[in-house]
Amino acid sequence: MPQHKLPEKFVLQNGEILHQASLHYEIEGEISNQKEIIWICHAFTGSATVKSWWPSLYFENGGFIDPKRHTVICANILGSCYGSTGPESINPDTNKKYGDEFPEISNRDVIKAFIDLRKSLNITNIDILIGGSLGGQQALEWSLIEPEIIQNQALIASNAKHSSWGIAFNELQRQAISLGANNSISKNEAIAIARKIAMLSYRSYDDFELNQKGKNEQDDWNIVSYLNYQGEKFKGRFSTDSYFILSKMMDNHNIASARNGSLEQILSLVKTNTLCIGIDSDNLFPLKEQGLMAHHIPNAKLEIINSKKGHDAFLIEGNKISRLIEKNFKKNYYEKA
Amino acid sequence: MPQHKLPEKFVLQNGEILHQASLHYEIEGEISNQKEIIWICHAFTGSATVKSWWPSLYFENGGFIDPKRHTVICANILGSCYGSTGPESINPDTNKKYGDEFPEISNRDVIKAFIDLRKSLNITNIDILIGGSLGGQQALEWSLIEPEIIQNQALIASNAKHSSWGIAFNELQRQAISLGANNSISKNEAIAIARKIAMLSYRSYDDFELNQKGKNEQDDWNIVSYLNYQGEKFKGRFSTDSYFILSKMMDNHNIASARNGSLEQILSLVKTNTLCIGIDSDNLFPLKEQGLMAHHIPNAKLEIINSKKGHDAFLIEGNKISRLIEKNFKKNYYEKA
Repeated sequence: MPQHKLPEKFVLQNGEILHQASLHYEIEGEISNQKEIIWICHAFTGSATVKSWWPSLYFENGGFIDPKRHTVICANILGSCYGSTGPESINPDTNKKYGDEFPEISNRDVIKAFIDLRKSLNITNIDILIGGSLGGQQALEWSLIEPEIIQNQALIASNAKHSSWGIAFNELQRQAISLGANNSISKNEAIAIARKIAMLSYRSYDDFELNQKGKNEQDDWNIVSYLNYQGEKFKGRFSTDSYFILSKMMDNHNIASARNGSLEQILSLVKTNTLCIGIDSDNLFPLKEQGLMAHHIPNAKLEIINSKKGHDAFLIEGNKISRLIEKNFKKNYYEKA
Repeated sequence: MPQHKLPEKFVLQNGEILHQASLHYEIEGEISNQKEIIWICHAFTGSATVKSWWPSLYFENGGFIDPKRHTVICANILGSCYGSTGPESINPDTNKKYGDEFPEISNRDVIKAFIDLRKSLNITNIDILIGGSLGGQQALEWSLIEPEIIQNQALIASNAKHSSWGIAFNELQRQAISLGANNSISKNEAIAIARKIAMLSYRSYDDFELNQKGKNEQDDWNIVSYLNYQGEKFKGRFSTDSYFILSKMMDNHNIASARNGSLEQILSLVKTNTLCIGIDSDNLFPLKEQGLMAHHIPNAKLEIINSKKGHDAFLIEGNKISRLIEKNFKKNYYEKA
């Protein structure tokens, strides 16, 4: 469990200071000139253990990541509950958990911390930066901040600014959690409901019709059992305070904020070779969002994955994503190999 | 406030009996041979006062309903909280409110009650039956039960069987309400959250992007203020128990249930001249559902409304619906006039 200590005082974008914060990260393979660096930015409820949540990106499962050629790095983001400093951490100023007093974290704060880690690892070149959903938002930020470091990036089911639609879904998940905050039993129940609401934005009409039709032997709707199962699974594994911090991080994503120019102008400043991948059934980050990025980022490519899985296809369709990465980064990346 | 008494013992589809139940209904105009009868089936949270929730259907607002030619009838559905017997009514067996002990009501029960009302009004011919959403589900049921009575019907943003997707949205609204059921403050708050979750299914990405973008002067997201406003407005006006009864009515809608044949076969038995209207941005009752109905109902027409308003366009776009009704029912209906 490698842990990277951030500077004693880590200044956030909003001016607040995190003391003695650290990042949990994982490296598969070694950092050397013989290996290409793939840095993966995880999504909302992800962790630094890429293989656990994105197995289909790996060679052994039909994906492109090959341990002989690639070194994979992933760091858990600030504000999460999977090893990096977040609301479940002890605040050194009070010796108590931060809880709901954890400061607001922006995607730029996340990248600032990643850059600190990158430097400590003596990495001066990232061959491919990959991010889906929230992770794609962060990757795009990184490519704007360190264009000389990020050679290629794949932004999957992501956007340049979070939509009112996406904010609405996140807000209602937070409101469901707040509704249950009165007592610990229902607080736990409430994060399950938040997860189930999120599932409506992660999946699609066709996915539910194809896979969760009708009733089961107990005369319950299969879709209800399925959603309840997803909620139960999630209960034990995520912090309600992290849910607030990370969903607000997503809501506030806007690459044009505190920069000099319109969204389109900022996109046009991206120097990294960029591949935007969209999913045709994605209700949460619809195709037009990847289209906008691809249109304005110089020389960017847009690829569309046909899937009925909705937004979650970015996790499920790692093999298709792998083929698109191989195809589009061949010139810039694979020929070098 | 006309009230129609149903038979002392009203037997429901599931075998349970409602005692001394009644329907609240409204009639605009008189029932005579000189007037054409338009019967409107209201949607989930609607009432018998059509003009209050569907004003754009009326001539004075650009719609087709003309008091000189039409008599409009609408009855509040069983299980609702707008005048017909529902969970807020007194159970004559206990002299207490039914509350959550109100029996399950099906769309067929609703139509059985409407037929009882129709007969009491000596109506033997309904020129146009109109229903949107849940109301369209009920209209379709009625046309199967009384083909000789219903001459024309417009089924708007509706379906022949409710989808797993739709059930998922309804279920999570019910779960949010249950989460708040522990105390009365949060129960009230919970129905507001249920309404806000519903808004996500009633509207669309484009609607929110166009109309609720960015932040207001208090630095709150406009979309959040908008949803909170919708939730607040709803709090006072709907019963949580009715919310359960009516959303389950919708979930259980399936014209093939307890009938002899597949969904497609049952649709092919419809004798009423049918117009199916879909909305291109409808996420809750997507176009394919109206397409399925139009494909299998003999001689049915399918019309598509272009709107960014999502499912709610069925309420908002009454003028467009009026033009489609005029156009499609001209032969069967207007030439008779």
